[in-house]
Amino acid sequence: MALKSFIHVHPDSHFPIQNLPYGAFKTHSTTLPRLGVAIGDYVLDLSEIAKSCLFNSPLLAGSDCFLQPTLNKFLAMGRPAWKEARDTLQKLLSSTEPALRDNMELRQKALVPMSEVEMVLPMEIGDYTDFFSSMHHAKNCGTIFVGPKNPIAPNWFRLPIAYHGRASSVVISGTDIIRPRGQGHPTGNSTPYFGPSLKLDFELEMGTVVGPGNELGKTIDVNEAADHIFGVVLMNDWSARDIQAWEYVPLGPFLGKSFGTTISPWIVTLDALQPFACDAPKQDPPPLPYLAEKTSKNYDIALELAHHTINGCNLRPGDLLGTGTISGPEPDSLGCLLELTWNGQKALSLNGTTRKFLEDGDEVIFTGCCKGDGYNVGFGTCTGKVVPPRD
Amino acid sequence: MALKSFIHVHPDSHFPIQNLPYGAFKTHSTTLPRLGVAIGDYVLDLSEIAKSCLFNSPLLAGSDCFLQPTLNKFLAMGRPAWKEARDTLQKLLSSTEPALRDNMELRQKALVPMSEVEMVLPMEIGDYTDFFSSMHHAKNCGTIFVGPKNPIAPNWFRLPIAYHGRASSVVISGTDIIRPRGQGHPTGNSTPYFGPSLKLDFELEMGTVVGPGNELGKTIDVNEAADHIFGVVLMNDWSARDIQAWEYVPLGPFLGKSFGTTISPWIVTLDALQPFACDAPKQDPPPLPYLAEKTSKNYDIALELAHHTINGCNLRPGDLLGTGTISGPEPDSLGCLLELTWNGQKALSLNGTTRKFLEDGDEVIFTGCCKGDGYNVGFGTCTGKVVPPRD
Repeated sequence: MALKSFIHVHPDSHFPIQNLPYGAFKTHSTTLPRLGVAIGDYVLDLSEIAKSCLFNSPLLAGSDCFLQPTLNKFLAMGRPAWKEARDTLQKLLSSTEPALRDNMELRQKALVPMSEVEMVLPMEIGDYTDFFSSMHHAKNCGTIFVGPKNPIAPNWFRLPIAYHGRASSVVISGTDIIRPRGQGHPTGNSTPYFGPSLKLDFELEMGTVVGPGNELGKTIDVNEAADHIFGVVLMNDWSARDIQAWEYVPLGPFLGKSFGTTISPWIVTLDALQPFACDAPKQDPPPLPYLAEKTSKNYDIALELAHHTINGCNLRPGDLLGTGTISGPEPDSLGCLLELTWNGQKALSLNGTTRKFLEDGDEVIFTGCCKGDGYNVGFGTCTGKVVPPRD
Repeated sequence: MALKSFIHVHPDSHFPIQNLPYGAFKTHSTTLPRLGVAIGDYVLDLSEIAKSCLFNSPLLAGSDCFLQPTLNKFLAMGRPAWKEARDTLQKLLSSTEPALRDNMELRQKALVPMSEVEMVLPMEIGDYTDFFSSMHHAKNCGTIFVGPKNPIAPNWFRLPIAYHGRASSVVISGTDIIRPRGQGHPTGNSTPYFGPSLKLDFELEMGTVVGPGNELGKTIDVNEAADHIFGVVLMNDWSARDIQAWEYVPLGPFLGKSFGTTISPWIVTLDALQPFACDAPKQDPPPLPYLAEKTSKNYDIALELAHHTINGCNLRPGDLLGTGTISGPEPDSLGCLLELTWNGQKALSLNGTTRKFLEDGDEVIFTGCCKGDGYNVGFGTCTGKVVPPRD
């Protein structure tokens, strides 16, 4: 029988005791953010649990990691500490454990209704990298921008392609996205268009959050990569396709993507996703030895991380690694408007209206969920509304 | 007559009283870094000056900005505070001012011989952006990688091209550079080369350090850009040309450049560079209005910064903006081995030895200096030695 909490959790909830994703929140009475885990419609305030000395495992007893305003310190502690925290919290929240269940004063302080909190970025992001993982997305983008002949560059089949993103522009779900201004591709030798982007798009992605980092000049072995990944969020890498198309040769995306990247507030841990692990698609051609995992699972995460450090590049706790737009082979499994409308050539119908690209006032909502036996492990939502330029 | 300090400064020194660049240093007796300015062969410890209450101007009196381990707080205070600090320090160090000159106890504490300090990164770098400013570099790279027909993409003439770099891999001058491993371009359909880079290169650049930032979604006007730039360092954006050539389509440089970027330790302020301001080259075609400065000087810095924020991208104090490799039109004014050896096709002779790319043990030393009337405003050196891969 599935583990149950003494807190009532609706069967459709994304946040049963099997999930316990981590986030950071503010309430009207706090100034600094606090750390918490989601349980049903509540946030469990980890600073209150720590102050009550209920983290009594070897690595966490006496640690101030849950008294910080971000998760970075906890992220740096690594998998053994994460496991202790998960064990402690699942026990504390279970229906059979009295320590929190029967302590009304602590329940009052530590369990905050989700409706009363404002979620904030759960980690300080030193660097943000975005990959280009989906073959269907790569093929569609290549066809649109370069043409149908060899739409995917040969390097894509050999190494994980990625670019450095702009860490300062990562925002939490719910933050308005201000339509960027910039230059668009001119026709022939004419002066380029300048003004608000005319091709504003969303990109459906997952983001992974780095745990312990590595020293500059050292590498992470592909078989140890999962120990450096704490968990996963939903991510919307908002993109201005007209700006991107004009600027990206030869140094890649820059201002077409640095005006806002939204992440969902709750980091779902790899431990919570463990029951949903699956094999990765077979790679053809086979990966070079440094990219070949002995056992391959976990949504390609390990693969990307090991490649990222093979040149000695140092990761730091809290770094964010995006998958790139996730598109499937079917027309209804495309992850951005660029593909859905084929760069604005055909309109997309939705709820009685049509779109080629996003308009001011449009709100984009991503959600995602793994269906377990009698419970979900969900990601909540990742939302953002488009608003016009300011100044 | 030029302003003089009571401290003896050799006429060839990069650090007379006219310069006063900012850095952060450690000594054998300190654990946390301290902030200082360079004067001749000494570092003036700003924490000692602050603790002696000698910063008595309106914005700096009572501020703890010089008691921090990084310059970020001071950077965020903006040009009025920077001007107060420069005025105070030039007066304190001048030959006619007794406050420091005649206080032997304070001189003993506050003036540390440069030979006794270890310089560290002077700012926490949130994001690092690298531009592609030099037309000669753009033309040479384009010719080598794409061919002699249209070597410079048409966008280069219309907007500042740039990519997001890897902030975690920025290191201080003197740090060894570990040769990166990675994949090189395969011949035809063969398996790509994997191993230590065979085409390790340096890139001669300048880096600018951001002062006050801007809010996400707001822009910085091109005519106010200089108020957001604190100063300038020398920069070596080490590059693995074989890794870069294979990975860069379509998302730009990634692991070919994220294994190390070296900056010189002393940030030369725009105020110190003021006497050396000059006009920028005429732009053809003329820039779009948002990029057109009313008065144009200061080495294109303003231009790049305003473009960086036109989409609403937020800069933060301490961000680093590189110029990209600075190459001139003459064969001896090329700023990297890729150009100097034409991608390894012809060897470069130097001190009785030859090089196509860098070999283990090679040390690269950059230096730079503005020659004033009886004094220099110099940048010191930016150095790094290549060492073989570890693990």
